[in-house]
Amino acid sequence: MSDSVATEISKRAAVAARAVAKLTTAEKNAVLQKMADAIRASEQDILAVNKKDLQQGKEKGLSDAMMDRLQLDSERVEGMATAIEEIIKLDDPVGERYPFTERPNGIKVEKMRIPLGVICMIYEARPNVTADAGSLCFKSGNAVILRCGREAIDTSKAIAKALHQALRESNLPEDVITVVPSPDRELMMELLKQDDYIDLVIPRGGEGLIHFVSDNSKIPVIQHYKGVCHLYVDKDADQEKALNILLNGKTQRTGVCNALEALLVHSDIAKEFLPKAAKALAEKNVKVHACKQSIQFFDGAEAIADDAFGEEYLALEIAVRTVADYDGAVEHIQDFGSGHTEVIISENQETVERFIREIDSAVTMANTSSRFSDGGQLGLGAEIGISTSKLHAYGPMGLQSLTTEKYVVTGTGQIRE
Amino acid sequence: MSDSVATEISKRAAVAARAVAKLTTAEKNAVLQKMADAIRASEQDILAVNKKDLQQGKEKGLSDAMMDRLQLDSERVEGMATAIEEIIKLDDPVGERYPFTERPNGIKVEKMRIPLGVICMIYEARPNVTADAGSLCFKSGNAVILRCGREAIDTSKAIAKALHQALRESNLPEDVITVVPSPDRELMMELLKQDDYIDLVIPRGGEGLIHFVSDNSKIPVIQHYKGVCHLYVDKDADQEKALNILLNGKTQRTGVCNALEALLVHSDIAKEFLPKAAKALAEKNVKVHACKQSIQFFDGAEAIADDAFGEEYLALEIAVRTVADYDGAVEHIQDFGSGHTEVIISENQETVERFIREIDSAVTMANTSSRFSDGGQLGLGAEIGISTSKLHAYGPMGLQSLTTEKYVVTGTGQIRE
Repeated sequence: MSDSVATEISKRAAVAARAVAKLTTAEKNAVLQKMADAIRASEQDILAVNKKDLQQGKEKGLSDAMMDRLQLDSERVEGMATAIEEIIKLDDPVGERYPFTERPNGIKVEKMRIPLGVICMIYEARPNVTADAGSLCFKSGNAVILRCGREAIDTSKAIAKALHQALRESNLPEDVITVVPSPDRELMMELLKQDDYIDLVIPRGGEGLIHFVSDNSKIPVIQHYKGVCHLYVDKDADQEKALNILLNGKTQRTGVCNALEALLVHSDIAKEFLPKAAKALAEKNVKVHACKQSIQFFDGAEAIADDAFGEEYLALEIAVRTVADYDGAVEHIQDFGSGHTEVIISENQETVERFIREIDSAVTMANTSSRFSDGGQLGLGAEIGISTSKLHAYGPMGLQSLTTEKYVVTGTGQIRE
Repeated sequence: MSDSVATEISKRAAVAARAVAKLTTAEKNAVLQKMADAIRASEQDILAVNKKDLQQGKEKGLSDAMMDRLQLDSERVEGMATAIEEIIKLDDPVGERYPFTERPNGIKVEKMRIPLGVICMIYEARPNVTADAGSLCFKSGNAVILRCGREAIDTSKAIAKALHQALRESNLPEDVITVVPSPDRELMMELLKQDDYIDLVIPRGGEGLIHFVSDNSKIPVIQHYKGVCHLYVDKDADQEKALNILLNGKTQRTGVCNALEALLVHSDIAKEFLPKAAKALAEKNVKVHACKQSIQFFDGAEAIADDAFGEEYLALEIAVRTVADYDGAVEHIQDFGSGHTEVIISENQETVERFIREIDSAVTMANTSSRFSDGGQLGLGAEIGISTSKLHAYGPMGLQSLTTEKYVVTGTGQIRE
């Protein structure tokens, strides 16, 4: 029986992965520079194909947001090239090696970081993911299969063509970076079964896509469903800081997973703080969904039932709840949080430390804005995704999340008695 | 709609997990000591129930191996108690905290280790797993759901009764450690869908069980299919060491995943080494499956085709292949290995280092026996399982594999511009 297209692609990627895994950091960086150069040199070709994708998108009636994600211009192409040059500067996690233990019989145990093998990225209309994910997976020693949405697939192929040129010039197989030949759902379904060859699937897109991929994959999937981020203003909060961070978290950008979706206020200071919060939120036209105790402070707020919290608004809307005390805030977050990011505002160091210990969200913050909860802002350099499930990676994922650790054991002839 | 039994169990475990996550190391150790004491005090009860399980097993015609795994005696009960006392001595990974970076705006980024939440162990006839897994999950701050096979479920419940007594005495909910009420497959299937409450599934048993669990789980599963461990004897090997390590790896114990299943010999030394290997293996009655170039050195060996390697014999049988050179050995391992454990024998430090870099098995060894490839031997203290897939954990899994890392971000009022 001949292999399916998905099996064929995956097998070839697995063989190519061996070649990438062997490269030194200097060798990988040289190839990455060639990739950046090739993208710059291919600008006209990439933009010409993108123009056609845009034309087709327009005919299909894509939303403005979708069209914006799809659209490339000279500046965005240059952005892809410089993003690759930023990845060159990042530390290479592969090969990191540190002592673990030495056993009484003299065998030495170490841990060593190695690539995962083959990563499959599944994304929708952002063609720049092709260059970003391609170069991040390459730097971390992996091969990658890129399954791009129908809208952007030709632009993605044009970008991949430039990356392939750099691979060929470096005597590496093109299978190191594969854009799937077609965006068909059947091909994607087949890819998700290639657990013999693919090590990790990273879907980037809406909750529907991520559920679909998780439900249909035999391969481990990085899950990132939603970001229902909470701000808890403690009784010992600096209320000025709290207001700034509330506004920044809710209004600096709304359609993102690290925007605030709920404000919890300690009952001791509710009467003092909530009128100030109401004024500030009203000035920014933020719609408020308030609990029974809070609603009196907000003009035109909508009432919200005690079991109806947990909404990801992704808009100028926020839920507000007065909690009895610190424990009430923790309980609310445990019941309604999504494991993404939570913030406490308090000048009481003891309360801050309790919050840090007791909240198990991927990014647990004190006295700063939830909007800093992403790979770039936290110093990871570049982000391949964010995980809100605790397995393998939790929170923003950088290069290290595309690797794993093995044991290295060396002896001088020891055998087991 | 009322919850299913599986949902009910999982929800309760998730609530109990919050209580365990909050405990300090000293508090957890005190509970563990109570568990060890309670197991000792319950010896007569546990053995009485085990006797009934054994009687039923006999009537059902369980294999000798299965009956041996199922059987407890005074010594084995004491073994469970002392195993828990060993876990008390292990370092608690939860709460470990280290600096990650400080950003130009002054926010401080740290990483902190936290429990996973709820672990589900699926195992067959070993009742001691109930105490081992129960106490390991507890020490790492998790709640655990134990789904034991039909043969051992009553013994497991008797053990859990002792553990519950220790939990009650410590004012902790019994839901911290749950043995499922029944070993029904339907209940297991339902448990595998509780991805809202269960964070990780660890199956322990044959390949069939692991495939079944992986194929039917919506929750991440630790996979450990098989151990096809290779010994590569390089041209620069100390042949005396090689022979010792070959015999130890193949014959010290055969039914285990870290036993050797294949010997690869560099063609330069095949003529010299293989006759010695043949003699040694014959003395131990090891059946040999040899390649075309090797078969001449073995009396009564069976021929094996070049594409038929990769068998996990779990018996006194071994595959032998002469490889052209070092690269041939690496290629063979990449084609036929299972990612578990591979060993090189060589006095050439450069070749050893290449092997360590280029082989991506979970435990990559030089000049020592594959039989050391387990948690206890590598100094992990206790082992909850072995992962042969690279996600989350790779190789023997200790306490740390039952935890994850979150980001801790602290500021002094910073907001994003």
